[in-house]
Amino acid sequence: MNKYDKLVTNALGRIVPTEINGQPAIPYMGIGKYRPTGHKAAPLIVSSADFPADGNKVSASLKEALVKCGLKDGMTISTHHHFRNGDLVANQIFDIAHEMGVKDLLWFPSASFPCHEPLIKYLEDGTIHHIEGSMNGALGKFTSMGKMKGVGVLRSHGGRYQAVQDGEVHIDLAVIAAPTSDPFGNSNGVNGPAACGLLGFALADSQYADKVIVVTDNLVPFPCIPWQIHGNYVDHVVVLDKIGIPEKIVSGTTEVTKSPDRLLLAEMTAQFCDEAGIIRDGFSFQAGAGGTALSIGIYFSEILRNRGWKARFARGGSNKYLVQMLEEGLTEYILDGQTFDLDGVRSMRDNPRHVNTSPFTSYNYHGKGNFATFVDVVILGATEVDVNFNANVVTHSDGLLLHGIGGWQNCLFSKCTILPIPLFRDRMPVILDEVTTVCGPGELIDVIVTERGIAINPRRTDLIEKLKNSSLPVKSIQELKTEAEKICGKPEKPKFSDEIVAVIKWVDGTVIDSVRRVIL
Amino acid sequence: MNKYDKLVTNALGRIVPTEINGQPAIPYMGIGKYRPTGHKAAPLIVSSADFPADGNKVSASLKEALVKCGLKDGMTISTHHHFRNGDLVANQIFDIAHEMGVKDLLWFPSASFPCHEPLIKYLEDGTIHHIEGSMNGALGKFTSMGKMKGVGVLRSHGGRYQAVQDGEVHIDLAVIAAPTSDPFGNSNGVNGPAACGLLGFALADSQYADKVIVVTDNLVPFPCIPWQIHGNYVDHVVVLDKIGIPEKIVSGTTEVTKSPDRLLLAEMTAQFCDEAGIIRDGFSFQAGAGGTALSIGIYFSEILRNRGWKARFARGGSNKYLVQMLEEGLTEYILDGQTFDLDGVRSMRDNPRHVNTSPFTSYNYHGKGNFATFVDVVILGATEVDVNFNANVVTHSDGLLLHGIGGWQNCLFSKCTILPIPLFRDRMPVILDEVTTVCGPGELIDVIVTERGIAINPRRTDLIEKLKNSSLPVKSIQELKTEAEKICGKPEKPKFSDEIVAVIKWVDGTVIDSVRRVIL
Repeated sequence: MNKYDKLVTNALGRIVPTEINGQPAIPYMGIGKYRPTGHKAAPLIVSSADFPADGNKVSASLKEALVKCGLKDGMTISTHHHFRNGDLVANQIFDIAHEMGVKDLLWFPSASFPCHEPLIKYLEDGTIHHIEGSMNGALGKFTSMGKMKGVGVLRSHGGRYQAVQDGEVHIDLAVIAAPTSDPFGNSNGVNGPAACGLLGFALADSQYADKVIVVTDNLVPFPCIPWQIHGNYVDHVVVLDKIGIPEKIVSGTTEVTKSPDRLLLAEMTAQFCDEAGIIRDGFSFQAGAGGTALSIGIYFSEILRNRGWKARFARGGSNKYLVQMLEEGLTEYILDGQTFDLDGVRSMRDNPRHVNTSPFTSYNYHGKGNFATFVDVVILGATEVDVNFNANVVTHSDGLLLHGIGGWQNCLFSKCTILPIPLFRDRMPVILDEVTTVCGPGELIDVIVTERGIAINPRRTDLIEKLKNSSLPVKSIQELKTEAEKICGKPEKPKFSDEIVAVIKWVDGTVIDSVRRVIL
Repeated sequence: MNKYDKLVTNALGRIVPTEINGQPAIPYMGIGKYRPTGHKAAPLIVSSADFPADGNKVSASLKEALVKCGLKDGMTISTHHHFRNGDLVANQIFDIAHEMGVKDLLWFPSASFPCHEPLIKYLEDGTIHHIEGSMNGALGKFTSMGKMKGVGVLRSHGGRYQAVQDGEVHIDLAVIAAPTSDPFGNSNGVNGPAACGLLGFALADSQYADKVIVVTDNLVPFPCIPWQIHGNYVDHVVVLDKIGIPEKIVSGTTEVTKSPDRLLLAEMTAQFCDEAGIIRDGFSFQAGAGGTALSIGIYFSEILRNRGWKARFARGGSNKYLVQMLEEGLTEYILDGQTFDLDGVRSMRDNPRHVNTSPFTSYNYHGKGNFATFVDVVILGATEVDVNFNANVVTHSDGLLLHGIGGWQNCLFSKCTILPIPLFRDRMPVILDEVTTVCGPGELIDVIVTERGIAINPRRTDLIEKLKNSSLPVKSIQELKTEAEKICGKPEKPKFSDEIVAVIKWVDGTVIDSVRRVIL
């Protein structure tokens, strides 16, 4: 069975649908080629006369608030993922919806985590029709097996803001779990037992949803300062005993890698950046929270410290290592989208140079620019890369949906995008003739660093020139692929049916690739 | 000549037009009676592909930026008034428009000041068609004499946000003078030679205008932190030598009154608040920046200090007295809309408890509530009050437009609104049978404090009860009027033609009153 009569080949040669869940879709046209027309989404005009003059919007329960918001069949319900795997709120929404007999909801999280596995039963019984957001772990496998009623739609963080802003996704009801809130709905992520740092992933939801519910376990008197979410957008506030599991919100355990292989990748990447002249006084970078990325940050720090330089800004996800850089004066600012540990939360709360960003400021492609394009270098991961530097970040070599896009697509717009990846994982080569799913076009991916060599995108003649006398093992991507295949053999491709179970949106809302049902 | 065929009597018995400058208008229906329908304004969707990837939006000159924005006949051009009488930018826009031969512009400032008097020549020669915003001093007289081509529209700060948000006013081109900006257009008011504290009055302009130009005299590298205005809304950045005259932006001279009459008003007001039980641990207030208001704040401080209490928040306009309260711990927060002196700017910059607000958070009536309704007591001024407690704040007893509405209408929604006013000014009674212009309905005005007695609105039986054994001279408003008339005689009314030269909008966009041409 193929749900699609209407398939086209997009500018990357990928076959994508022109209709998704009954809505028209535009195929990917190339970077910057699709120019949007029309106007942004226009929320309903409301009146303060319909809200309590004393500012007290507290409802007795989440169910009461959902009922007041008119929860009904077919609605789009959004949540954010700042609590990561410690979220205790999202599942409750659908428990209540199920109890009320509500059907065919569209769940629109900014990301999903293993803690959301219980929602599978609601995907099965029709409470939830489909998910637009990341489908990870068990949810990913469920989707990959073709079990979800609708087609999953994966977007980057910036693409999610764009989709809401442009009216591509209309949120009927946003539920914003907030570590601290006042009765008016002003809320933040820096205080309270479930402190997660910030609430930027819920910004679009607050601005554009018809109805907004803030759920907190730390109600403070007005004013809740800082007000990362403005109560002026909020309809109801609900107080629960516990909205998140702190130790799962902030891991506190993210440490630099001790793996010799990964340390090698980190060292090679840092050396590459240095030799390419990317590291300079006032440069900017985004590494990330993985062990390799953390190690790269530490190499960067050493270089800056030794030369008396400092970065102008570092993009977070923040953690103790980035906070140390800020406190040591090795970076002037952290521009942060999410905090990964308690040092990040503390620094975000107390240090005005640790700056709260949102997908709007950092990533939204349908704004008058966004910050992602100014970053000198970003270090990202990938599950697969092809010989044209196209990369995959959502499916695994077995074809299963593995994780969401996050800010990955948005970050590709930096001045230099580097993917430090092992040449093979579990004896499966990572560099292929063709990736399972294209999430990012090769022309935006500049450098692949593997333990056996570094491939520079041929488009980056400037980088090739700078590295021509390097001691680093610069090779062609074809050479790297051949080396990997020598060791692992040519990998077998996963088996897919024709059925499209999910699509990957590009940052401009066009469809860059399709994910097909896996035949195991 | 009467420009209006269509006049109606609104819910306050005032005759108002149903069409203003060719646009339909809704008469005032009563507080909270008009319920808006439809959707907010929807700005055009743009693409980052059309903006420089390095984030550098700097244009060579203001003219170049205006030309790039397509400045042309009939456009609506907005500016903000955070520079007050020290603004050096607004006039330049219209100098350029005049030089280019552009006609029929609508100037949409958040307020105007005497420094804008040079714009009269452009109102005369047709460069500017009319003003929607405050028309003060010379501009007010020009309007009152019927010389402006279109009809002036006066709105409160909250009403201005509402009008833009609701699409009642479409801004073609916003020019935001910013004390500090980066090349991307992120900007703030806390740093730079023209520091004015914040830029909240330009928020709606940045969000909803088709084109946005930031003009600065302090360009810093990305990121400009804090980013009170987001560069993601900005099209062009212009660097000028000087955008404001600091000593006129921050007066630095606002001092408590030494006038015995005013001190008496201040003392009576503070005593009233105390006896009414309004001052309590955790209360909130908004006084203002005039000499009387400052003195009231000082009385409040004394009461709090003596009793070991503190305010939960004080609403600014801020100045050194409010900052002292914050620094002494007599208030937990300042929620500030504009800073009036250098202490205000410093505190806003350095103290996280001195919080940047905007007309959106504080005042917008077409939001899901706003902060104005939670304030325990606000102290405001008025030019005239009638026996039904309706008050005027824009015209003088000679009928001339005197000043804008500011946040006055919005603040009336507080839990207790007190107007400390002299019983007469220049031998003209201030309490009248009917005010020249109704800016605020009497049912929102609770107490009139004059040097010869205090009148409590009969609707506030709670306050009357609390004050029944007071030593304060509580009288009826009729008694106060009679006393004034005994001294000054019954005042003569100014002479007006039928012609409507301006209208006063209520916070919900309806028309509360008309201003007619003065016959001198």
